[in-house]
Amino acid sequence: MNIDVSSPSADGTTEVVEVLLADRSYPIVIGRGVSTDSSLIARHLKPGRAALVTSEVVGALYLAPVTAALAAAGIEAVPIVLPDGEQHKNWQVLNTVFDHLIEHRCDRRTPVIALGGGVIGDMAGFAAATWQRGVPFVQIPTTLLAQVDSSVGGKTAINHPQGKNMIGAFHQPGLVLADTALLDTLPDRELSAGLAEVIKYGLIRDTAFLDWLEPNLAKLLARDPAALAYAVRRSCEHKAEVVAADEREAGLRETLNLGHTFGHAVETGVGYGEWLHGEAVAAGTVLAAAMSARLGWLGEGEVGRVRRLFALARLPVEPPPMPAARWLDLMGHDKKVRGGRIRLVLLKGLGHAVTTGDYDPAALDATLAEVAGHG
Amino acid sequence: MNIDVSSPSADGTTEVVEVLLADRSYPIVIGRGVSTDSSLIARHLKPGRAALVTSEVVGALYLAPVTAALAAAGIEAVPIVLPDGEQHKNWQVLNTVFDHLIEHRCDRRTPVIALGGGVIGDMAGFAAATWQRGVPFVQIPTTLLAQVDSSVGGKTAINHPQGKNMIGAFHQPGLVLADTALLDTLPDRELSAGLAEVIKYGLIRDTAFLDWLEPNLAKLLARDPAALAYAVRRSCEHKAEVVAADEREAGLRETLNLGHTFGHAVETGVGYGEWLHGEAVAAGTVLAAAMSARLGWLGEGEVGRVRRLFALARLPVEPPPMPAARWLDLMGHDKKVRGGRIRLVLLKGLGHAVTTGDYDPAALDATLAEVAGHG
Repeated sequence: MNIDVSSPSADGTTEVVEVLLADRSYPIVIGRGVSTDSSLIARHLKPGRAALVTSEVVGALYLAPVTAALAAAGIEAVPIVLPDGEQHKNWQVLNTVFDHLIEHRCDRRTPVIALGGGVIGDMAGFAAATWQRGVPFVQIPTTLLAQVDSSVGGKTAINHPQGKNMIGAFHQPGLVLADTALLDTLPDRELSAGLAEVIKYGLIRDTAFLDWLEPNLAKLLARDPAALAYAVRRSCEHKAEVVAADEREAGLRETLNLGHTFGHAVETGVGYGEWLHGEAVAAGTVLAAAMSARLGWLGEGEVGRVRRLFALARLPVEPPPMPAARWLDLMGHDKKVRGGRIRLVLLKGLGHAVTTGDYDPAALDATLAEVAGHG
Repeated sequence: MNIDVSSPSADGTTEVVEVLLADRSYPIVIGRGVSTDSSLIARHLKPGRAALVTSEVVGALYLAPVTAALAAAGIEAVPIVLPDGEQHKNWQVLNTVFDHLIEHRCDRRTPVIALGGGVIGDMAGFAAATWQRGVPFVQIPTTLLAQVDSSVGGKTAINHPQGKNMIGAFHQPGLVLADTALLDTLPDRELSAGLAEVIKYGLIRDTAFLDWLEPNLAKLLARDPAALAYAVRRSCEHKAEVVAADEREAGLRETLNLGHTFGHAVETGVGYGEWLHGEAVAAGTVLAAAMSARLGWLGEGEVGRVRRLFALARLPVEPPPMPAARWLDLMGHDKKVRGGRIRLVLLKGLGHAVTTGDYDPAALDATLAEVAGHG
């Protein structure tokens, strides 16, 4: 890996991370103001129309400036405003997107632009993947979590009532505009949730990044522009490397799901929208680390460091109480199940994640029993 | 092209047509009894479970024997029986497929098998394309139309209330079993509808096949096994060649939609399910031929031959009466629209189709005016 932790990029500069996928390669453009830079937009998108999918909350803040920037680039935006929240990432709301697309006669060449967080990106992306069997797609992520993770890599999905992201497609964007200025208005809780995925990259593959993060989490929470720009860029570099190596999640990419099998159980168990995704991932990653320690793969001191990193990012390190049987039931629906076995991403030391079903099941049972509470 | 029209394959033999798509290449196995040949199935599918999606009508006939053949190959089938008909190719019914998949804990490696006609293949295929972002898919087409066209090439879709196949994905099967014995129970009307697509291959790219078809349509309607086997094989060879050259329909593949833009307007205009797809394609192709003649691209005698071929196959050669404005409105929603222009597949001589928006619009208006009737 080619990193220089001593010199984070200066605030104000625009940086480009390329996701290398042969004829579907695309740039992630990172910087303050890139989402309203009409000359930048005009270099990447053809004049014409575009469907601009956003949420009520994000739309109130950013629909007008982005629409104006698109107009200046010769692109007429058809606005599609969806209700906010993970609980709306479903068929019913997706169908309203399709209704707009057909009403405005969006055709095979009309791009769909997602302006929002992970929920909007997932839904707009799935609409772009399936509308007329696939139309061009652009991501303008407005949360830290979306900028460092969900907007990159082409995963799109909606939820099934009994399972998160159960229905979806791989559909790569043609362009990602990660505008760090949009993070100015992000609620503190969502900023922390995004940091869960930032910390994850360090835990699975980059201890030098962990060493940078630990003393810089306070700066990140204070929205120090240079620190944020560096964390976004470094995370995008990791995501781009992993996606380029394993687009369809046949191996390496699975490790990006550290904490996610436990985390999905939390999200589904308490009901979508109660816990933010990043919060569930934080608590889930602590469980994965604890189980790794039970297996003798991780030291107790390292588990403590995992907990400390998330706590410094003001993230939950304990899951909600659920009976062990409920945990197993919810985890059994995870997409990483192969032939009935629960495959998990675990840590064999910090910076080294493995995906495996080859572990003593008693370690899973004991880990869940410890957090089952009295539920 | 490598064809031998003088010697149709003998009844009873099994033939294989390969669809060449690099690491996603797959065989179409054609012959009597291939859908219940457990040793053939065992050579292609791993033991385990599979979701077997079928319709009420087809399921009553073939669910038991196919389930038994799968069981003999070590595969436990989870049956998913959907209502019959194009009017059910929608979100609501698709969601019942997902409900079954989650209930039976079908995971990323559980294949979805479509046992049915085009509607079942499209829906099961779209479910396979989107369940957990894509699972293995097998087609066992039970209609002539599905065997010669829709089961090959990876197009999957459901309908939007205002447009056919508006929501879908490209998702190639891993195996197609075209069992011509299943055509024994096909209603006459559906047999004719399938012949529309068979004739289409001749019209767009193979006049020798047209020359074979014209004197053999009576045999095909009488279900002569050797004639059917030859027509299915030759059609699959054409479909495989076109799909291998242009999987995503960027050019050549568009010509397979001869008659489909007009045909979709018929299907949507009269309501899904009133006209069979093949019937609408037949009437639509006659319109495309008539318009081609108005443009001076086709002789009147050739238009007459197009009508005669469809009539010999007992297919409609006149569309239902609709006002010209209604035609244009319905055709404007077609997926081949680019930037608002109606692109059409037209004929520049028999055996030579072109996709173009470069025509005198008056020819389209006059063609539609002639069939508008008093609606």
